[in-house]
Amino acid sequence: MKQIKISYIGGGSKLWARSFMQDLALADGIGGEVCLYDIDREAALRNQQIAQRIHGKQEAISQFRYTVADSLEQCLVGADFVLISLLPGTFREMRSDVHAPENYGIYQSVGDTVGPGGVLRAMRTVPIFEGFARAIQEFCPNAWVLNLTNPMSACVKALYDTFPGIKAFGCCHEVFHTQDFLCCVLKELKGLNLTRRDIYTDASGINHFTWITQARYQDTDILALLPEFMDRYFESGYYEKGNHRQWETDTFAYANRVKMDLFQKYGALAAAGDRHLAEFVPNNWYLGSPEQVKHWHFGLTTVDFREKNQRQQIADSIAMATGTMEVPLQPSGEELVELLQAILGLKTIVSNVNMPNRGQILGLPIGSIVETNCVFTHGMVMPVTASALPSGALALVQRSCAAIDLTCEGIKERNLDKLFAAFMSQSLCSTLSMEDGRKLFDTMRENTKAYLAPYGL
Amino acid sequence: MKQIKISYIGGGSKLWARSFMQDLALADGIGGEVCLYDIDREAALRNQQIAQRIHGKQEAISQFRYTVADSLEQCLVGADFVLISLLPGTFREMRSDVHAPENYGIYQSVGDTVGPGGVLRAMRTVPIFEGFARAIQEFCPNAWVLNLTNPMSACVKALYDTFPGIKAFGCCHEVFHTQDFLCCVLKELKGLNLTRRDIYTDASGINHFTWITQARYQDTDILALLPEFMDRYFESGYYEKGNHRQWETDTFAYANRVKMDLFQKYGALAAAGDRHLAEFVPNNWYLGSPEQVKHWHFGLTTVDFREKNQRQQIADSIAMATGTMEVPLQPSGEELVELLQAILGLKTIVSNVNMPNRGQILGLPIGSIVETNCVFTHGMVMPVTASALPSGALALVQRSCAAIDLTCEGIKERNLDKLFAAFMSQSLCSTLSMEDGRKLFDTMRENTKAYLAPYGL
Amino acid sequence: MKQIKISYIGGGSKLWARSFMQDLALADGIGGEVCLYDIDREAALRNQQIAQRIHGKQEAISQFRYTVADSLEQCLVGADFVLISLLPGTFREMRSDVHAPENYGIYQSVGDTVGPGGVLRAMRTVPIFEGFARAIQEFCPNAWVLNLTNPMSACVKALYDTFPGIKAFGCCHEVFHTQDFLCCVLKELKGLNLTRRDIYTDASGINHFTWITQARYQDTDILALLPEFMDRYFESGYYEKGNHRQWETDTFAYANRVKMDLFQKYGALAAAGDRHLAEFVPNNWYLGSPEQVKHWHFGLTTVDFREKNQRQQIADSIAMATGTMEVPLQPSGEELVELLQAILGLKTIVSNVNMPNRGQILGLPIGSIVETNCVFTHGMVMPVTASALPSGALALVQRSCAAIDLTCEGIKERNLDKLFAAFMSQSLCSTLSMEDGRKLFDTMRENTKAYLAPYGL
Amino acid sequence: MKQIKISYIGGGSKLWARSFMQDLALADGIGGEVCLYDIDREAALRNQQIAQRIHGKQEAISQFRYTVADSLEQCLVGADFVLISLLPGTFREMRSDVHAPENYGIYQSVGDTVGPGGVLRAMRTVPIFEGFARAIQEFCPNAWVLNLTNPMSACVKALYDTFPGIKAFGCCHEVFHTQDFLCCVLKELKGLNLTRRDIYTDASGINHFTWITQARYQDTDILALLPEFMDRYFESGYYEKGNHRQWETDTFAYANRVKMDLFQKYGALAAAGDRHLAEFVPNNWYLGSPEQVKHWHFGLTTVDFREKNQRQQIADSIAMATGTMEVPLQPSGEELVELLQAILGLKTIVSNVNMPNRGQILGLPIGSIVETNCVFTHGMVMPVTASALPSGALALVQRSCAAIDLTCEGIKERNLDKLFAAFMSQSLCSTLSMEDGRKLFDTMRENTKAYLAPYGL
Repeated sequence: MKQIKISYIGGGSKLWARSFMQDLALADGIGGEVCLYDIDREAALRNQQIAQRIHGKQEAISQFRYTVADSLEQCLVGADFVLISLLPGTFREMRSDVHAPENYGIYQSVGDTVGPGGVLRAMRTVPIFEGFARAIQEFCPNAWVLNLTNPMSACVKALYDTFPGIKAFGCCHEVFHTQDFLCCVLKELKGLNLTRRDIYTDASGINHFTWITQARYQDTDILALLPEFMDRYFESGYYEKGNHRQWETDTFAYANRVKMDLFQKYGALAAAGDRHLAEFVPNNWYLGSPEQVKHWHFGLTTVDFREKNQRQQIADSIAMATGTMEVPLQPSGEELVELLQAILGLKTIVSNVNMPNRGQILGLPIGSIVETNCVFTHGMVMPVTASALPSGALALVQRSCAAIDLTCEGIKERNLDKLFAAFMSQSLCSTLSMEDGRKLFDTMRENTKAYLAPYGL
Repeated sequence: MKQIKISYIGGGSKLWARSFMQDLALADGIGGEVCLYDIDREAALRNQQIAQRIHGKQEAISQFRYTVADSLEQCLVGADFVLISLLPGTFREMRSDVHAPENYGIYQSVGDTVGPGGVLRAMRTVPIFEGFARAIQEFCPNAWVLNLTNPMSACVKALYDTFPGIKAFGCCHEVFHTQDFLCCVLKELKGLNLTRRDIYTDASGINHFTWITQARYQDTDILALLPEFMDRYFESGYYEKGNHRQWETDTFAYANRVKMDLFQKYGALAAAGDRHLAEFVPNNWYLGSPEQVKHWHFGLTTVDFREKNQRQQIADSIAMATGTMEVPLQPSGEELVELLQAILGLKTIVSNVNMPNRGQILGLPIGSIVETNCVFTHGMVMPVTASALPSGALALVQRSCAAIDLTCEGIKERNLDKLFAAFMSQSLCSTLSMEDGRKLFDTMRENTKAYLAPYGL
Repeated sequence: MKQIKISYIGGGSKLWARSFMQDLALADGIGGEVCLYDIDREAALRNQQIAQRIHGKQEAISQFRYTVADSLEQCLVGADFVLISLLPGTFREMRSDVHAPENYGIYQSVGDTVGPGGVLRAMRTVPIFEGFARAIQEFCPNAWVLNLTNPMSACVKALYDTFPGIKAFGCCHEVFHTQDFLCCVLKELKGLNLTRRDIYTDASGINHFTWITQARYQDTDILALLPEFMDRYFESGYYEKGNHRQWETDTFAYANRVKMDLFQKYGALAAAGDRHLAEFVPNNWYLGSPEQVKHWHFGLTTVDFREKNQRQQIADSIAMATGTMEVPLQPSGEELVELLQAILGLKTIVSNVNMPNRGQILGLPIGSIVETNCVFTHGMVMPVTASALPSGALALVQRSCAAIDLTCEGIKERNLDKLFAAFMSQSLCSTLSMEDGRKLFDTMRENTKAYLAPYGL
Repeated sequence: MKQIKISYIGGGSKLWARSFMQDLALADGIGGEVCLYDIDREAALRNQQIAQRIHGKQEAISQFRYTVADSLEQCLVGADFVLISLLPGTFREMRSDVHAPENYGIYQSVGDTVGPGGVLRAMRTVPIFEGFARAIQEFCPNAWVLNLTNPMSACVKALYDTFPGIKAFGCCHEVFHTQDFLCCVLKELKGLNLTRRDIYTDASGINHFTWITQARYQDTDILALLPEFMDRYFESGYYEKGNHRQWETDTFAYANRVKMDLFQKYGALAAAGDRHLAEFVPNNWYLGSPEQVKHWHFGLTTVDFREKNQRQQIADSIAMATGTMEVPLQPSGEELVELLQAILGLKTIVSNVNMPNRGQILGLPIGSIVETNCVFTHGMVMPVTASALPSGALALVQRSCAAIDLTCEGIKERNLDKLFAAFMSQSLCSTLSMEDGRKLFDTMRENTKAYLAPYGL
């Protein structure tokens, strides 16, 4: 029985924490302490209470003690693993990220990764991560660090730039959903009932814009089935998690029409929700207007919705913490706990995460943060080399990767000119004129200046 | 006295040929034969007559015999140098290249390098160059090949892709004009009267989007003078070859406001005419509308103008050939003849040309066609490594370079899907929706299908 | 139940074939045909008979039909997998490879990979592999090709150079033995009873000179235990497969003193038998004389021994084929069959094999054949990026890798000057003067000229 | 007239300083101050007096004031150029470098670049250069730094490693002599009377092991003439600076037989004196014994000779300083002053120097110090990309380059294990056994420990 300390930074108001706590309670072979740290101490305390209720259940397998730290130092000292999951700023800033660009015709379906919103969010988040990296170097330099925070690439890059010896990677479940989609294809055309763990996909790209270049179940080439599948479903759309019209009522749903369209044009399967994919190409391809978005069968997630949604989540948290609502205890479908177990040497897993490029993708710069499969096992996380992207897809990925690296460089140097250049180089700013771009950038900085002190604003 | 054979392919209706003939007549140390080959045999014969008149002048120094070849083979056999300067297709195709995109709000100031026009022009031109390369491999594999044809990068790449052992480079005078501009800066702020050969610039990029990263006269850093110069001239504009308002009446003139604006944003000096530069960035930066173009003080060169201009040039040619118009004989300011002399070992020159990247620019792929300084001397043309581009500028260059490489790959494979992807990846197509893009691409292919047989169209 | 066709080229007189047949008989989930092809048809027929006896046993699980092909074409048509295991030439040539250099003071413990013997063996073998690659391209281009033949790197390189679309890798069990050695370390110092599959090692290098840079069991860093282990065993030596003095009587045994010495000097664990390792460093380090070899506790395998050994093996084969000797049926410890099952999608395995470098090792040329871990799964074999070698070890690997690449280039071009340069660049030729080198190279070519027709000798 | 300050560190007892002072006195367009700094202050004062005598001559053109600095700071403040030319340690250490290895059969013809002597000399010199780099960063960060000190590559690397923003390069005249040799070839076979500046060579490699891959005079390929030249002179040898038997009496002379032999084997012309070249290949190729050295027609420079030679030089210096000996005033044939003039923008020169690889040589690591042509002009020194080395030559260069980089890494980390690995990886240690290597390394460290304080010895 491995006794470990897991430090959880943030996570107070997110579902990530709750599903992690459930999976952890159901894990075998491990036990120890989970130390919660959140600048919203109330949220951390609630999570502690929820965790205690989870572990009080009969079905709970592992034994974990949950503590709440008073300081980052206290949280990190002695950690074997550090999880970071936070929202920089408030909904006020997020509202600016997502909606301010709409005044200039720039619609964002998510607004937290790339595009105008992604750049501003990176500007707020990265300096915080620089601080985390310094603290980790000081208090737990040998810990494995799992980042769950967006913008993923910029956050992971900041960790490595600040503390080159860090052992960090970024986890994201978007590829999993695309693997689910491929299982639906196999079911539809081959009558096979499989889960995503039964198949194997080769992934190559950057977070939220990873591409599946090969997908196989035994000797079946799943990508080769897509043309026939698309003959049936391109028009209507298809949703791996429900009804193909669910996007009309569920802001997080989509119908994979963007994904299928990109496959037709580029010959590889972009592996994230359509809401994310649409943000990595020129904005007039899929996000040109609310009507165009509708045409492609997905929606623009509003911050109003997010606020309401979070209020509900917090209410649920309180209810669960205080016992007025039952805490569920079942596997979440996420892999975080399994990755931990693999790193502890209890199993070997191949899964896709975000790490600095050290050769796994030829054609992207060494050191850029890329998403590929990695082997997780006995204290090691080793990137697997990816097969070549089709040239057209590679050019798209290179463009976004360069824009992200430029953003990171601008942030590192606290150089607003470079940041404006990075802003204008976003694919989502394709239809934005230089003058409008300047106005929009200035407005968004002004809107969020409470969190931009590092830039002297 | 070096006796050489120069093969000149095309050039019938272009000024390039005439200025080359003049410079050649004024050259010392060389003599021999110039063999002209043009599918418009009349044009070649006219050039032959003009050449004879030039060499009949007292001021003529060298002795060159001009012949007209009946076939490409006859032209190439025994060649020491091959110059290629041609216009693929007719004005009918060029009209489509330049003006068809206007129906979708895409304005092009030149339309022969990148953007929708550049892609279609490459599709027509590259197969012809593949043929040239095969013929050169067969008939004169050791000749040096100077390409003057646009789109420059695609043409030079086609030569090397088809015959890897070729000794070829592409010449363009755009950087020279920017060097003239820098001399004006020195004159204005330092009172120095210099020509572009007195200063030295470090150039890095791709044709028509080369950047000057360092410019020095002795210990004076000329780029460091630009902010002061721009304080004086950014508003009005400044034209190194004449009045800053010349662009209002001269379609080839510009006022360097684009160049100065890019310098302000990126910290390096893009070194081509503003008409070219504007085509390498999103179309809404400088080419968003005829009004925006006017705001930036340059013009959209129409094909009407080009037709009229060419008619005049042909009339002039006839008049010069028949002796009713005097043929001028004075140095043109071009460097072609000097490059020949240097390759022959008569001098050593450093000048910027286009060659496959073999290390001269870190950050662009090995094998992509790039423009940097090269040392010309005794049978060698050796690219000089360029200092690093500022990251923002590099990202812009990488994007266009990838789009060109994708275009070349699509042409090489005769793959229309890849070509459409390349078309949509053009910076000039930034505001173009996917549907409009498809329509425009199809229209432009239809318009020019007479020259697209290699694609089975 | 997967029905597959496995083509087995060669293997007539080698143990590899027999252990493969046993493992195959014990495999579940697969069945079909094994088609044997050997230029020694008798040997193939014997293997067929042995296989039939194996499958006649009660413990046999799978059903495989063994056939003997009359031609390479017949063998390959329809193949899903191709195994190649052959000995180019006869013992006459091997005698020259191994012993001719002794006249010049060059002792080789194996003589089939690098060094003078390795170069000559490559010269004989690679042209044969070029033929295999062409045949595979013609008759079974989608088959997976497993090479078991030495010199491994040159053979695999020849396959990819000749047919770039081939799906091939090279298998070698040397790393496995080093993993066994690490298990002994864990047993000795931690009291853990583990097999090599329980631990995980990161491997980086070239065949027979692969290095383990990380080795872990859960949170135990096994390499960190080596200093203590070496305090106990460096003097006496230690043999993972038996008594530490077994090398005195068993020519294939060794005592890991070379391996421990290299670890002390370079900080990583070279992962092959000492007999192999000693051939990758200057010959005066471990192979300077029979006495020095003895000092390091291993032996020089003579061709006399190999001949006698093979006679015994053939006698055994005949006995087994005819039924006068029992054929054993138990797992061999090799992984070939498991790799096949993984490629068929029946499991996922991480194991080390030899493939072209596509990024898995930074610091070695792209395209050189390198040995690292790979993920085997559902129709894919994906190299895993290796962590950095210590600089000193990397320099040693680079040197041998360059020498191998130079050998391959010389063979490909049938260029004897380049091959002599490659010969002199072998680490094992360190003490050889240029004149002696010339004489030795000429003698070895003369000795083996019956198999050097491709070079016009 | 450019007024500049040149700081000259060291140079007290070397010919370099005197020839530089002469060339400087004969230069036009420049004037100012030369500030001398030497730990042997007497030597600096002598050079000052000699300089004054030189400038007192009628033929002197420029006006330079010579000063002697009391401190490194005083020397460097305000410098435009810094020249560094020094001998670390005394002849006592050099005696160990050169002769201690002879006890183990390792003969060195120079012993200051690579081999056992080169490693120890680097260990003494590099820490001093680290100090220079820090001082330059503090006192004259914009100065151009010209290094003349051996081991060249390690010294230049130390400058860049310590102060990445430094503008430094390393000058060496070995390639010049090989160019002289090529002029002799042209004279012999073509009857042309040319100097090395009339021809052009492409150079690629590392200091003292640079290779000429192309050499041309106009359309004459000089390397193509070598086979005929070698038919005449390989046996006797040929010396570009005198009689082919001069090596028998002049320790610095050689007969180019090593160079011609390497050309025959590798297809490119190694461009340094044979004494240097022989040290970059296994020691038994040319330096196996004093007899073998004689066979190749060059000599082993003894430290006895160097001591005697230096005593004479110092005596001469004193005589010149005090006026009892005439100071000559004629061009030295070196290029240092011309390089200064070119950097000042007074001319453009292409010449070979040592700089960090930034793409000029594909196949060597980025950042390693390499020697290629560079363009010198107006405040810039830009490496020219080199054409590819033949594979065999490249492998030799890679090996020595890796050994030098490993030496530098060991020095930077003050890591004696890494340094011993670097020591054993020297080509000159090819015949050295590991045990002898250890003894020799320890002896040489002990011999020179007075200058190895940075390593805690």
